[in-house]
Amino acid sequence: MPKGFSSFGINIGIKDKTKDFGVIYSEVPCKAAAVFTKNNYPGAPVIVGKEHVRSGVLQAIVINSKNSNVATGERGVENSREICRTIGESLGISETLVLPSSTGVIGVPLKMEVILPACKKAKELLKPGNLEEVAEAIMTTDTRKKISFRKIKTKSGEATIFGIAKGAGMIEPNMATMLCYILSDASLPENTNLYSVLKSSVDKSFNCLSIDSDTSTSDTVVLLCNGLAGEADEAEFSRALEEISVDLTKLIAIDGEGATKLIELTVSSAKNETQARKIGKSILNSPLVKTAIYGGDPNWGRLVMAVGKVFDEPIPFEGLEIYFGDLPVKGATPETLKKLSEYLKNNTEISLNVVLNVGATSMKFWGCDLTEKYIEENAYYTT
Amino acid sequence: MPKGFSSFGINIGIKDKTKDFGVIYSEVPCKAAAVFTKNNYPGAPVIVGKEHVRSGVLQAIVINSKNSNVATGERGVENSREICRTIGESLGISETLVLPSSTGVIGVPLKMEVILPACKKAKELLKPGNLEEVAEAIMTTDTRKKISFRKIKTKSGEATIFGIAKGAGMIEPNMATMLCYILSDASLPENTNLYSVLKSSVDKSFNCLSIDSDTSTSDTVVLLCNGLAGEADEAEFSRALEEISVDLTKLIAIDGEGATKLIELTVSSAKNETQARKIGKSILNSPLVKTAIYGGDPNWGRLVMAVGKVFDEPIPFEGLEIYFGDLPVKGATPETLKKLSEYLKNNTEISLNVVLNVGATSMKFWGCDLTEKYIEENAYYTT
Repeated sequence: MPKGFSSFGINIGIKDKTKDFGVIYSEVPCKAAAVFTKNNYPGAPVIVGKEHVRSGVLQAIVINSKNSNVATGERGVENSREICRTIGESLGISETLVLPSSTGVIGVPLKMEVILPACKKAKELLKPGNLEEVAEAIMTTDTRKKISFRKIKTKSGEATIFGIAKGAGMIEPNMATMLCYILSDASLPENTNLYSVLKSSVDKSFNCLSIDSDTSTSDTVVLLCNGLAGEADEAEFSRALEEISVDLTKLIAIDGEGATKLIELTVSSAKNETQARKIGKSILNSPLVKTAIYGGDPNWGRLVMAVGKVFDEPIPFEGLEIYFGDLPVKGATPETLKKLSEYLKNNTEISLNVVLNVGATSMKFWGCDLTEKYIEENAYYTT
Repeated sequence: MPKGFSSFGINIGIKDKTKDFGVIYSEVPCKAAAVFTKNNYPGAPVIVGKEHVRSGVLQAIVINSKNSNVATGERGVENSREICRTIGESLGISETLVLPSSTGVIGVPLKMEVILPACKKAKELLKPGNLEEVAEAIMTTDTRKKISFRKIKTKSGEATIFGIAKGAGMIEPNMATMLCYILSDASLPENTNLYSVLKSSVDKSFNCLSIDSDTSTSDTVVLLCNGLAGEADEAEFSRALEEISVDLTKLIAIDGEGATKLIELTVSSAKNETQARKIGKSILNSPLVKTAIYGGDPNWGRLVMAVGKVFDEPIPFEGLEIYFGDLPVKGATPETLKKLSEYLKNNTEISLNVVLNVGATSMKFWGCDLTEKYIEENAYYTT
């Protein structure tokens, strides 16, 4: 665990008996950067969080699950401010050093009567490190905690970058993702633009993920660096940060609501990143591609359809190559179809390679299959 | 039935024992217009059909289901041409007066050994009218025939416009739809642009439909007018054509793969048609909105999310109104949620009204809920 961070995750009864409230605190102020959802109706905590991170310094994060405090109007924003204020008082820091997050149902007022008393007790509940407990407290329909970390060298020894995330449905991050907190005891050289470092990593990880094409109103990725372990090299830090972000992205994809298979899609020989992204998302979001992978149905024609429906990026059919693992499937013989079917049935991580042969850009994307369980989970979510 | 048309629909064993082959023939050449899929990999019949309809005259349509003849390369196009040639010979007309259509699995060569003998027998199989039989022969995963017709006045009496369609999955028509044939014995005034008449009707019906956001490679809407019942007024014809198109659109939506509910969405007070269309499609394509409607879950917050994820069309939250039937649901009380839940559970046609309050454009869109059955149908489609 990175030095100087303490945290807790507990149940306060927002919806049921599972953990639903957590706080992360650094004993010294941290350099901080964050990216948020591009949804035009961001949640109240996103509105307040954007204000607080503008200074580039944060010291604490307060999170509740089971209720997203979205579409709750002025009262919702005031509730988020009051939570920051109460946490600030308990921890003895300014409320503007606190980043608030909420995740869960949309359109329902927060249960302030259980949240505020918990905020008041924050200081006494903190335990050194302990971030796994927070990883659990931020879960909604997630079935498992999502954690990834790396060690990197600093001028004075070794630092840790530690990331936790949640997210299983309403996931097509754009400029951001579901809740994700990345904490480090490294510092970075004075001239480093921490936002650029974070954004670049997010663009190659969370922004290449789609579970169900629905962009959450709460997406937030925050990076906090308290510097207690000394200064790291920016390139090394960025590399580790990207690895952690990709790890967490894959953990979210494989834990997609109802998912049984992780899909890792490589779009290569694209003209540029925009083209790769449009085609990558079109494939990963196609319910017909997703259901075929779920059923182990060697229906490669649906890939052709999904590439072809990106109307403004026509790719010559002759040059298009499609691989499942190492198996080329375009114009497949019955024998190849049998191999493809076996590949799909025998693997829970499906590697899909679509070669466009129109340029030199290559990008990876992550998603999951679409199953009956996704429907069950989402048909009765609030009832 | 419109005068002068004969047809048949039979089983020739392309996949199973259900009807899979049909021909429609007019005893005189027809003025014709067609719109086709915008998918960048159109099926071979779409390529050939575009060539044949360019003259503005057609006399026959030949259709097979169970195989779409898509992604089959040069051989696929040659197969489509040979089908037209054989039908032309059988009916004693030029092959360029024949429009071919195929629908079904992608990427598998057509079974020419069963199709060509059927083409040769076309003339003897034709029966006057008989279009219901064709409506059945073009079905794939459809559970019911889709037919709509209207009578209109002509200078010399009365004409009929008769439309049939198929489509249940891979449906987000763009500039076109799944297979749809609209036949009339009316003629239209000499200066009428038949393509514009058809396109305008398609834009308000099939292009406002989405079942699963996947745009088929075979989409085709064809209008044939043989003029045997005399000249109709263009405005009256257009009105009847639009009614038929909307009827067929709704029939497709309610028969969406696995669907239990038809969703009719009105987006009103939009800035313009582009804005209404983006927001309408975002709502109808949201798997979270669709599953909530399936489950009768009064989760109106997901509508807010779906409006908000149209990043380039921000709508002020204060002005946004959302109605299920007549029930306003934004900021719903527990009592309203209960009413909403009852509305969803007690109706198979869900009327959804989203008022943007930023302009004067109003448009209707059609879709369906998303259920476990959609997954089941599509997970094992080819196997």
